[in-house]
Amino acid sequence: MAWSAAQYAKFEDERTRPARDLLAQVPDLPAGPAFDLGCGPGNSTELILARFPGSLLTGIDSDEDMLSAARTRLPDLRFERGDLAAWTPPAGSALFFANAVFQWLPEHVTLFERLILALAPGGTLAVQMPDNLDEPTHLLMEETAEEPAFAPAFAGRTIRRRSLPSPATYVERLTSKEVRVDVWHTVYYHQLVNANAIVEWVKGTGLRPYLDALPTTQRAGYLAAYAEKIRKAYPAMKNGRVLLRFPRLFIVATRDR
Amino acid sequence: MAWSAAQYAKFEDERTRPARDLLAQVPDLPAGPAFDLGCGPGNSTELILARFPGSLLTGIDSDEDMLSAARTRLPDLRFERGDLAAWTPPAGSALFFANAVFQWLPEHVTLFERLILALAPGGTLAVQMPDNLDEPTHLLMEETAEEPAFAPAFAGRTIRRRSLPSPATYVERLTSKEVRVDVWHTVYYHQLVNANAIVEWVKGTGLRPYLDALPTTQRAGYLAAYAEKIRKAYPAMKNGRVLLRFPRLFIVATRDR
Repeated sequence: MAWSAAQYAKFEDERTRPARDLLAQVPDLPAGPAFDLGCGPGNSTELILARFPGSLLTGIDSDEDMLSAARTRLPDLRFERGDLAAWTPPAGSALFFANAVFQWLPEHVTLFERLILALAPGGTLAVQMPDNLDEPTHLLMEETAEEPAFAPAFAGRTIRRRSLPSPATYVERLTSKEVRVDVWHTVYYHQLVNANAIVEWVKGTGLRPYLDALPTTQRAGYLAAYAEKIRKAYPAMKNGRVLLRFPRLFIVATRDR
Repeated sequence: MAWSAAQYAKFEDERTRPARDLLAQVPDLPAGPAFDLGCGPGNSTELILARFPGSLLTGIDSDEDMLSAARTRLPDLRFERGDLAAWTPPAGSALFFANAVFQWLPEHVTLFERLILALAPGGTLAVQMPDNLDEPTHLLMEETAEEPAFAPAFAGRTIRRRSLPSPATYVERLTSKEVRVDVWHTVYYHQLVNANAIVEWVKGTGLRPYLDALPTTQRAGYLAAYAEKIRKAYPAMKNGRVLLRFPRLFIVATRDR
């Protein structure tokens, strides 16, 4: 099951707000190439282009389905396939923007150090990562995987991502004489039409590795069991809607001019 | 001890960021008067004016020291003394902006309902409140007050503010057919030069009611005991600085056009 641009786009407004919030904290760019790392279907790339119209912007993603959607959306821009764990950042870059991608790479602090070294004076590394592993959405993926019906498929495998390091870790590792670092969390409370919309949301991201690990015949059963738990964990408000609590971590590291 | 505009201004950059973040989520204003409720020394008022230069903006605050600082800062603007618990919002208003003030009024949800009723179509109520009562900064104010040396001065008095209602409470109480509500938390991690800077920070706000409750002769002792606890709760990072974790709640309620 590849990344699904269509599934991902279902909650595009909600997913784009963090990218806008991150971009709002990026200072004006120096000259040099700019990169949208893990650009997905190009929604964040479009925002960066609107904020910095003259920039030499390239979108990088590892998934062809996403790249294809991005090229359709922004036909004049360059999109390249790349694996961020191995990607070599060009020296003298103005911007590395990474919205919701580095949480998949456990050793990302080391990658951030490398990216910062490739920044031009005045350049910025701007990162947003979901920090939601302790939310019911994600704890219940694990709980469902431990049920007798599904446990054999997961035996000996770790699907759960590693938790993010503490904010202090990023500040300590990335700050230097010429690099200032700002870190914050934002917890969004998305109003979704019902609990099933939460299931649809995570089907586009965090639930995928669990479904991938199961034999095709077990996927519907796992989804039904998970959805039942989600309905209990996210009770309806008076208007029938549910609130999806969603914490995200932001990091903005800027090299002095 | 009145509110001290000078003490408050010591951390103006850090205190202004939440106001900027709140303002970034306010949509363009319709015609009508705009108000900066609890305007303090006018830093948030200045931001609102920069974003909406033509607006009929008035700053409201209950403290003369703050109003005086605001008038010096923005001599062309109108600043009025007002008590928000009793203040009558003019009908047809374009904006009620309230940065870090309504946490002092426990019945603020009712006040928000009244403010929303006074909004012009397309108008916005935008609120930010510290939500930090469970942080060490505030728990240690209570712990120090309970020490034998200080407990008699606090006997029978409750200094601690009431905790904020849940995000769902604001969504449920304020949403209606013509009013959309967005709620989020942002947790800032302020990098301060040392633990004593944290004490200086809260001296301008949350610590004041505790110091006010003590006889003058006990204030230095209370401050020293509190500062000692803060030093243990906020250990220095490698560069000697400390991280002050500071959660804040944001609410933006907009009436349909």
